[in-house]
Amino acid sequence: MPTSQRPTRRRLPEFTLIRQIASRLPRRPSDVIAGIGDDAAIVRLDAGSDLLLTTDLLAERIHFDPRTASWADIGFKAVAANASDIAAMGGRPRHLLIAVALSPTTPVRAVPALYRGIRDACRRWGITLVGGDTSASASCMFLSLALTGIVPRGRALRRSGARIGDDIYVTGTLGDARAGLELLSRSVRRNGRPLLAGSRRFLIERHRRPAARVAEGARLSARRVATAAIDLSDGLSGDLRHVCEQSRVGAEIDAVRLPISQACRKYAAATGRSAIDLALAGGEDYELLFTAPVRHRQALIRLFGGRRPGISRIGTIRPRVFGLQLREASGRRAPLPNRSYEHFR
Amino acid sequence: MPTSQRPTRRRLPEFTLIRQIASRLPRRPSDVIAGIGDDAAIVRLDAGSDLLLTTDLLAERIHFDPRTASWADIGFKAVAANASDIAAMGGRPRHLLIAVALSPTTPVRAVPALYRGIRDACRRWGITLVGGDTSASASCMFLSLALTGIVPRGRALRRSGARIGDDIYVTGTLGDARAGLELLSRSVRRNGRPLLAGSRRFLIERHRRPAARVAEGARLSARRVATAAIDLSDGLSGDLRHVCEQSRVGAEIDAVRLPISQACRKYAAATGRSAIDLALAGGEDYELLFTAPVRHRQALIRLFGGRRPGISRIGTIRPRVFGLQLREASGRRAPLPNRSYEHFR
Repeated sequence: MPTSQRPTRRRLPEFTLIRQIASRLPRRPSDVIAGIGDDAAIVRLDAGSDLLLTTDLLAERIHFDPRTASWADIGFKAVAANASDIAAMGGRPRHLLIAVALSPTTPVRAVPALYRGIRDACRRWGITLVGGDTSASASCMFLSLALTGIVPRGRALRRSGARIGDDIYVTGTLGDARAGLELLSRSVRRNGRPLLAGSRRFLIERHRRPAARVAEGARLSARRVATAAIDLSDGLSGDLRHVCEQSRVGAEIDAVRLPISQACRKYAAATGRSAIDLALAGGEDYELLFTAPVRHRQALIRLFGGRRPGISRIGTIRPRVFGLQLREASGRRAPLPNRSYEHFR
Repeated sequence: MPTSQRPTRRRLPEFTLIRQIASRLPRRPSDVIAGIGDDAAIVRLDAGSDLLLTTDLLAERIHFDPRTASWADIGFKAVAANASDIAAMGGRPRHLLIAVALSPTTPVRAVPALYRGIRDACRRWGITLVGGDTSASASCMFLSLALTGIVPRGRALRRSGARIGDDIYVTGTLGDARAGLELLSRSVRRNGRPLLAGSRRFLIERHRRPAARVAEGARLSARRVATAAIDLSDGLSGDLRHVCEQSRVGAEIDAVRLPISQACRKYAAATGRSAIDLALAGGEDYELLFTAPVRHRQALIRLFGGRRPGISRIGTIRPRVFGLQLREASGRRAPLPNRSYEHFR
């Protein structure tokens, strides 16, 4: 008989598993008063901090697919995507709550592998797992995350602060993750030869283990140089649109300035695709897009010069009536295509 | 083609819906710097507060069932269950993040109804919706919540503080929600006549719109009278076990002292069931169970006297070797059955 009551989730063996995973993490930091095992976690914040809150609900076959990613990669990436949201606010990710609903077809090995990936990501960005829950799903598997972050009081980077004349920057390179995903789905040959193994590995790694730009976001917030920021999860075209809507401005992107890796260029050539299109519409790069006044150009060069990932100045904030335009290599301007990776299918 | 990339969730019309719902809520309170619409919500806490964090992932047909509950009730109850976790820590629920994955079979009317229930619960307990996300599910519907709470610094009620000799109390009455659920699944007759409409309505309401005991938890925390607390989601037997495990103690429950409503007694009689069993094993009452030293009996009578819900002293904390025992009306002691509602099926 189906029921609308909750199963006795606290008694599932997987809850014990979450405890085990948590116990293998570094010792509880001083801001965590109580973690897993009570009705709620208890956290103590510094009076000089604001708290950031973000959440994600991920569905098997829709947001992740065990056929193209390992369970460890799925866990890692789920945390990375949320850490990236915190990074885009200039914050440091801190406390993670995670809930998993297992389907009857989820293999037994999935759960420890998933948590291994989660643990790797927690270690990488200094995140503490403070709560977990495992329950059942009648059909496919679901993964739900909630992540806190802290940011010095009043210093959070918003989407709404971009001003006309500001420069537009991105960190790292764009389009890699999309190319990596496509590589997992088909074999790509260039002039009859497969894509070089090194390029292939790089692109797939960018898809499987994205880097949330936490240090970069924190640096921008600390130096008060950025006026707005967002992380690139949907793709540059879509995410820039969010900044423009919230800031009530337009934008011009300079196609030749888009940072595209050698590997992505090779992939585009091998498949007869436009690398620019991949950079504009490919999602899940988890790089940061931010805006800054022209007077901060030198400060930004000092802030990011010689570091990896670097930053690229890719355009300018324009008045709202300008809309979103792409300046092509020929100098011709065209509306920035409003599309995401979905249109590649 | 299935893909492991995230759909462009921010563009779904339902995201707009969440904004609309949020805009109909009371004006943003002063501790919420930014709510829906950025990469993360921004919240400012008072320096004298600790932060509580809890989460739940609810699956259609497993944790909720649209055949026995309205979408509004499902939304209300999801919030109530999380608010109850915060109440059990002595905290005030504050900031809610909610993510919904809609299945192809979810009716169009489900989403606004769901959010209406969520909004009702938010209003009732002073909760602010600070983030939302709607995406797709290939199969059944999922609902994920993350809720913060605040509690005066160092005052959170833990599961681990019960001491030998402490009294054991519960708020309200037990078993009602289970009886209400069963009433929705079958027609119950007593001596050939249906259960009185008033009783039936009361029990079903207790199942559909549970009351998180927020004021009661906060009162216990403020007066520093309780040594441990938990909310009753799985049923008294199971949840008392959690307190005993975490506090490394045993417990004796006095069957005749269990608070059982007249309606629940009538339901038990009509179905030939034991009302004691319903009180011990029925889940989802969302009442609080707490322990307090004997010297606080008078203080607790003053604190809860004449208020609704009242509290009942139902037993005593014993040494760990004692285990968990039930003292029956005859005076005979028996091990407390380790079971939940699942065994009713």
